[in-house]
Amino acid sequence: MINELREFLKSQHPGVEYTSGLIDLVSYSTDASTNQNRPLMAVWPTSTGQISGILAFCNERGIPVTARGAGTGLTGMAVPIEGGIVLDLCRMNRIKKLSIADRLAVVEPGVVFGDLAKALAPHGFCFPPDPSSGIVATLGGNVATNAGGLKGAKYGTTKDYVLGLEVVLANGQVMRTGGKTLKTSSGYNLTQLFVGSEGTLGVISEITLKINPLPTVFSTAMASFDNVEDAGRAITGIMQSGILPAVLEIMDRATIKAVSQYSELELPQCAAMILVETDGFTKGETEYQLDKVLGLFKANQASSIRKAGSQQERMALWKARKAAYGGLANLNNTLLVEDLAVPMSKVAPMLKFVEELSLRYGLTIATAGHAGDGNLHPTICFDGANQAEAERAHQAAAELFDKIIEFEGTLTGEHGIGLDKAPLLHTEHDAEAMAAMGGLKNYFDPNHILNPGKMALTKP
Amino acid sequence: MINELREFLKSQHPGVEYTSGLIDLVSYSTDASTNQNRPLMAVWPTSTGQISGILAFCNERGIPVTARGAGTGLTGMAVPIEGGIVLDLCRMNRIKKLSIADRLAVVEPGVVFGDLAKALAPHGFCFPPDPSSGIVATLGGNVATNAGGLKGAKYGTTKDYVLGLEVVLANGQVMRTGGKTLKTSSGYNLTQLFVGSEGTLGVISEITLKINPLPTVFSTAMASFDNVEDAGRAITGIMQSGILPAVLEIMDRATIKAVSQYSELELPQCAAMILVETDGFTKGETEYQLDKVLGLFKANQASSIRKAGSQQERMALWKARKAAYGGLANLNNTLLVEDLAVPMSKVAPMLKFVEELSLRYGLTIATAGHAGDGNLHPTICFDGANQAEAERAHQAAAELFDKIIEFEGTLTGEHGIGLDKAPLLHTEHDAEAMAAMGGLKNYFDPNHILNPGKMALTKP
Repeated sequence: MINELREFLKSQHPGVEYTSGLIDLVSYSTDASTNQNRPLMAVWPTSTGQISGILAFCNERGIPVTARGAGTGLTGMAVPIEGGIVLDLCRMNRIKKLSIADRLAVVEPGVVFGDLAKALAPHGFCFPPDPSSGIVATLGGNVATNAGGLKGAKYGTTKDYVLGLEVVLANGQVMRTGGKTLKTSSGYNLTQLFVGSEGTLGVISEITLKINPLPTVFSTAMASFDNVEDAGRAITGIMQSGILPAVLEIMDRATIKAVSQYSELELPQCAAMILVETDGFTKGETEYQLDKVLGLFKANQASSIRKAGSQQERMALWKARKAAYGGLANLNNTLLVEDLAVPMSKVAPMLKFVEELSLRYGLTIATAGHAGDGNLHPTICFDGANQAEAERAHQAAAELFDKIIEFEGTLTGEHGIGLDKAPLLHTEHDAEAMAAMGGLKNYFDPNHILNPGKMALTKP
Repeated sequence: MINELREFLKSQHPGVEYTSGLIDLVSYSTDASTNQNRPLMAVWPTSTGQISGILAFCNERGIPVTARGAGTGLTGMAVPIEGGIVLDLCRMNRIKKLSIADRLAVVEPGVVFGDLAKALAPHGFCFPPDPSSGIVATLGGNVATNAGGLKGAKYGTTKDYVLGLEVVLANGQVMRTGGKTLKTSSGYNLTQLFVGSEGTLGVISEITLKINPLPTVFSTAMASFDNVEDAGRAITGIMQSGILPAVLEIMDRATIKAVSQYSELELPQCAAMILVETDGFTKGETEYQLDKVLGLFKANQASSIRKAGSQQERMALWKARKAAYGGLANLNNTLLVEDLAVPMSKVAPMLKFVEELSLRYGLTIATAGHAGDGNLHPTICFDGANQAEAERAHQAAAELFDKIIEFEGTLTGEHGIGLDKAPLLHTEHDAEAMAAMGGLKNYFDPNHILNPGKMALTKP
């Protein structure tokens, strides 16, 4: 089958490069999760026409095709779990159009988030979602997973900025969705069907993104709390206070400890820290908002508050938050990074629950997250080589999933379903919604060649 | 068939009211468009269970079902063009939950936009889209048409605020989409498939909306221009200047004339007027933004600028804009209200084109619109009783549609496709997208009972 594909590429798409070298295939067997499986071949298409030809070929023969970008996904969505070929889209990395007048950017899927940010900044514009992996993650991956980030509470996530897509369907047909206008009510919203579909409905070959003015003024502060519930109540209070912070990040005791251990930062020993940033065009506006926030910090028993008086002090406050994932990665040899989101009033109870869970199972669970939209990342730390501990970790995770559903939350705020959450999808969505997702998959990809095995979508 | 339905309702849903009285059916034969067709019966369900029972019954027998709210739609989407029954959802008008802490509202589809606004205002919150028909239009209709309004440029449209839905499918099954969290990447975005689907995929029985803090401070100004292209260039300039006005409305010469004739307002005789409003939490912020706008007005040859110095003056400036549709309605006995949106750089050329079109066809074409997102409403005025003039009007409209597509615009920014734009849908979307929309319709409504005849979705 792979020989046949090689012959097809040589004769029909002589420009396209590919590999079946073992060392390459090992690289393409995983992403930033712990899942892995080796594909038969990896291909580097450079045009929509090549993707189209490859998909048509694979569709006729039932060869699985897993599209991927930089592979920073945390739930296994880019892992070719049923083998077949990997389409690495990183070489389709042209910014095709930057139109500040039209307030949009047209990009190929392999453009790195950070590269678009760099291209837009001199014009005073940005693509607001700010995923933590932004310096390496590709925009195709951002769209396919509906990536979130640090600024969701005020600026939303990737889906809020995708105006249109070019998508190669499983049979090789090329479809355009949406368009170039900031507003439309024309036909079904096919664009949003592909955003967050994790490569299971089609391969995104071009993206039209709405861009926003860059905020120019910021006010930043950090507060410590001796009680994680107080921190949670402060967060809920801020989000109902009538202002909208651009950033509202939380780190709990275990995260703070990890950051302190693995960096030279001196952080207070406390139950939780919150980093907040307000933005706008004038200092009066950002300070007005920050004052409200500081009032709520005090009203919820913050034990200390540090406000940045300069850009340098602002960067110092950010440093702790930015060190969080690095710190966590050093905590133990195996981590389960969760990605729940709960309704805002459940942030405090969820933080409390995670704390109890950690005590009950005798496991470090470090929580950091984008608290302003209720998106928390409890990270369960354990020694993967210790079977009993691994079992305990997975039991704790199972309890956490039950609590998420009990709180009317979602299993994933921004990381996606992939392989890791596929068995749980039905706990969040009812039987009718699960059936509808299956129906959509069967319609767009009847042979189930596109990223098979993901998102609980099984062949009928 | 209708007798059978009546028996079914009496025995299975004795609480539900319905009518087949002629006077009622005449009312239910149209909406705010010129389309009409009489249904066989109108039903007023008050619960999801009743909708479910009715749909299951109709689905088995192939009876068309057209759901509607207040009937303010302008493209015939609530007209039961294939007869059958009308489901009037206006009695399902409970606000089921207002949770400021969770930043959401859960409503039945018959809740009027303005009633939700009134309920939210005392808490300092709002559902930002602000459709012009908001004091009568229902939220179910807003969602089914992805309603826009005056604040799209800064705050987006209905789709940006729908977190979740309860939908009754054609076969009577009840499905929940999305949820109650501000962020999620869990599974396909079924919610957005139903937003804007104009009642052709299911009947929306409950809506969960994200709510936003109400802005508290405003700066408002109005400018006149002697040249419509200058006004267009000012608009494009503002939207790329780095600030985001909350309101940016345009009225052209014909609209200004209509307002002057049918109100006691004294407006300047000019080619175009722009109303702008910036919002925020502090006066410094709104003035900073307005200053940028005023600079761009001047740079683009505004002939006069009036800035509101008080709330009273602000209301005076708004009065002209609010009188626009009333004025237009008085212009002639027949109107074609168009609803195009173009990329922002095409606003000036489009205004120029409409002016030329008006001269060439010898017809008044009055343009008003939400210029900040490129959404213009050219209204072609003619005497419907004069056949030659009516033909000219439709020819002018056809030229306009061609120009919209040439400019990479959309046929409808916020009014929807309905009946009026159904024959044109394929000019905006490619064959693959049209096929996909048809495929989705066939999957969710295989018997084509839901609002048949709309959106170019024909039975296979």
